[in-house]
Amino acid sequence: MHNLKEMKELRKYIMFEHKDKAHINSLGEFGLIEHLTKSFTITKKETKQSIGDDAAIIDCGGKQQVISTDMLIENIHFDLMYAPLVHVGYKAIASNVSDICAMNVKASQVLVSIAISSKYSLQAVEELYVGVRAACEKYDLELIGGDTSTSVTGLVISITVIGYADEKYIVKRSGAKVGDLICVSGDLGGAYMGLQVLEREKQVFLESKDMQPDLEGKDYIVGRQLRPEARKDIIDLLEELQVIPSSMIDISDGLSSELFHLSKNSNVGVKIYEDKVPIDQQTYDTALEFNLSPTTCAMNGGEDYELLFTITQKDYDKIKNSMDLSVIGYCTDEHEGRELITKSGNVVPLEAQGWENFKSFE
Amino acid sequence: MHNLKEMKELRKYIMFEHKDKAHINSLGEFGLIEHLTKSFTITKKETKQSIGDDAAIIDCGGKQQVISTDMLIENIHFDLMYAPLVHVGYKAIASNVSDICAMNVKASQVLVSIAISSKYSLQAVEELYVGVRAACEKYDLELIGGDTSTSVTGLVISITVIGYADEKYIVKRSGAKVGDLICVSGDLGGAYMGLQVLEREKQVFLESKDMQPDLEGKDYIVGRQLRPEARKDIIDLLEELQVIPSSMIDISDGLSSELFHLSKNSNVGVKIYEDKVPIDQQTYDTALEFNLSPTTCAMNGGEDYELLFTITQKDYDKIKNSMDLSVIGYCTDEHEGRELITKSGNVVPLEAQGWENFKSFE
Repeated sequence: MHNLKEMKELRKYIMFEHKDKAHINSLGEFGLIEHLTKSFTITKKETKQSIGDDAAIIDCGGKQQVISTDMLIENIHFDLMYAPLVHVGYKAIASNVSDICAMNVKASQVLVSIAISSKYSLQAVEELYVGVRAACEKYDLELIGGDTSTSVTGLVISITVIGYADEKYIVKRSGAKVGDLICVSGDLGGAYMGLQVLEREKQVFLESKDMQPDLEGKDYIVGRQLRPEARKDIIDLLEELQVIPSSMIDISDGLSSELFHLSKNSNVGVKIYEDKVPIDQQTYDTALEFNLSPTTCAMNGGEDYELLFTITQKDYDKIKNSMDLSVIGYCTDEHEGRELITKSGNVVPLEAQGWENFKSFE
Repeated sequence: MHNLKEMKELRKYIMFEHKDKAHINSLGEFGLIEHLTKSFTITKKETKQSIGDDAAIIDCGGKQQVISTDMLIENIHFDLMYAPLVHVGYKAIASNVSDICAMNVKASQVLVSIAISSKYSLQAVEELYVGVRAACEKYDLELIGGDTSTSVTGLVISITVIGYADEKYIVKRSGAKVGDLICVSGDLGGAYMGLQVLEREKQVFLESKDMQPDLEGKDYIVGRQLRPEARKDIIDLLEELQVIPSSMIDISDGLSSELFHLSKNSNVGVKIYEDKVPIDQQTYDTALEFNLSPTTCAMNGGEDYELLFTITQKDYDKIKNSMDLSVIGYCTDEHEGRELITKSGNVVPLEAQGWENFKSFE
């Protein structure tokens, strides 16, 4: 069964003997996934969609099933200094449900695994599950499995969400056509500005423990950061309006980054109008307060979990009265590239700048 | 959308303000899962099996789908001092495939999420994926999704495995009947003794860095620990023999613990014969070398990933010539409890002693 020589041979790959080798950061997240998975092949007829969309698609004979998984790590994805565990639990579910919404599908079941260090009290873990349960109720999800484990340091949460639908309703990133209108739900940049406020208040608190956080007038953006919603209501709305988008993706890494994925997968260019990008007043004002461009925050700030989708022009009349949807541009020929038309009429190329990059260039 | 007062209220649940509260360890893993999930309800007709078996079962109209998830944490589930990353990747897949085998189903697709700290080289992560890929090829699995993330400290791997089968072939923990024969595949205790050897050699190495590990004559048990196999071949064999077990579970936490789950879920007692419990000679000899009882190691040592199942007596003739299957006892009336008949004819109650307990009582 086991070849000991092979094992001894392979001991040399243990990481502390390879300090001089290329670091994983050099590839970035998407590059790393692609690098690690490019040699895996897909041949089963049941596998309808593999890596490369918001969710994978499996066909087991009845409805098609979409499935997505995500891992959240303490101090990388959330900071318990200001994120109450009940919200961490809620957000973990909501952000995964958002991936299923991005396929135009309603999530049905979820598996939740957690790893926790012994520093956590039972009450703390219970709070996390209060949030998980609230999100399951909100999105009509059933918890069907998972795993609990000890962690050496912080909290780790891994979520797998499942939904199913008839094939004809499932929307991928790859279906946008030249001339299609580009739409987004809700407003953008709020979650990012909420994070800036929370980080500022954290610094104030660390410098003087007696200070209470000053979140006055920031409730909307702080809520967008701490307890975002998946836009299942938009999936319901689209169903009601009898609109099936030609392509869709959720905005977790920022509008620019998602536009990049969508246009790349659909082989189209995009033209976006700055004055059409929806920004809430509180987001706008707070961006100025932080000396940031509101548009930059809306284009590149992550974690809004709004939906970005394309529709054929003939569907425009169906959606034009929906207050919660904005048409921000249209799809162009691939060779025209990705462009933002500024309020002053200038044409600037869109950067594929993701969330992480955005944080580091500040 | 977001209630700020509620948020401030909930800040008090942040863990560092609750040092005096009950610790999660007080419940144990199974108790914690039950405690956290008892308030979640299942009402969807598609959810055929929720928490409480090796895998959940979903019916989307065609075949039934079984799905299982598991999280593996560095220094809890594996130690990179002696576990080469290629084996860690292989074992992560194999141990999850084993959960699908335990439903009498062959796994088809897998989602793999990893969190890695920047101390890892790209080559190290590639090695992990060499193991993942080798296991995918071995078990005919397709990698269809996942997530990569940064970790603050060690490596975290989360795996979700999916399989599907017609309803009539799927085997749960709950179907054993009084009089059914209890069978196990392969042999037991090897992975545990392999771990003892590796831990001993690690200590020697830590005391004197020039010492090379002495694993002479321990290749079988070290292999059982570092690179276990899921018994998909047993699922194939049972299909060939036209045997559908009445209940089944995989042995990840030790035979005693799994017998406890199986008999509890099936509402039966069990009578096990010590002299029928399969133990490899190398496991046996090494247990004695470590002053441990080989039977105790076989009953309580974890991570063998063999299958424990029950069959009706009329199926005995079909399996009796299979070298890799052992009949170790039979199911009794529930009130007779769980008993081990020792080689000397004594009757001792079986303890529901899991893997973790076993480690701490040594």
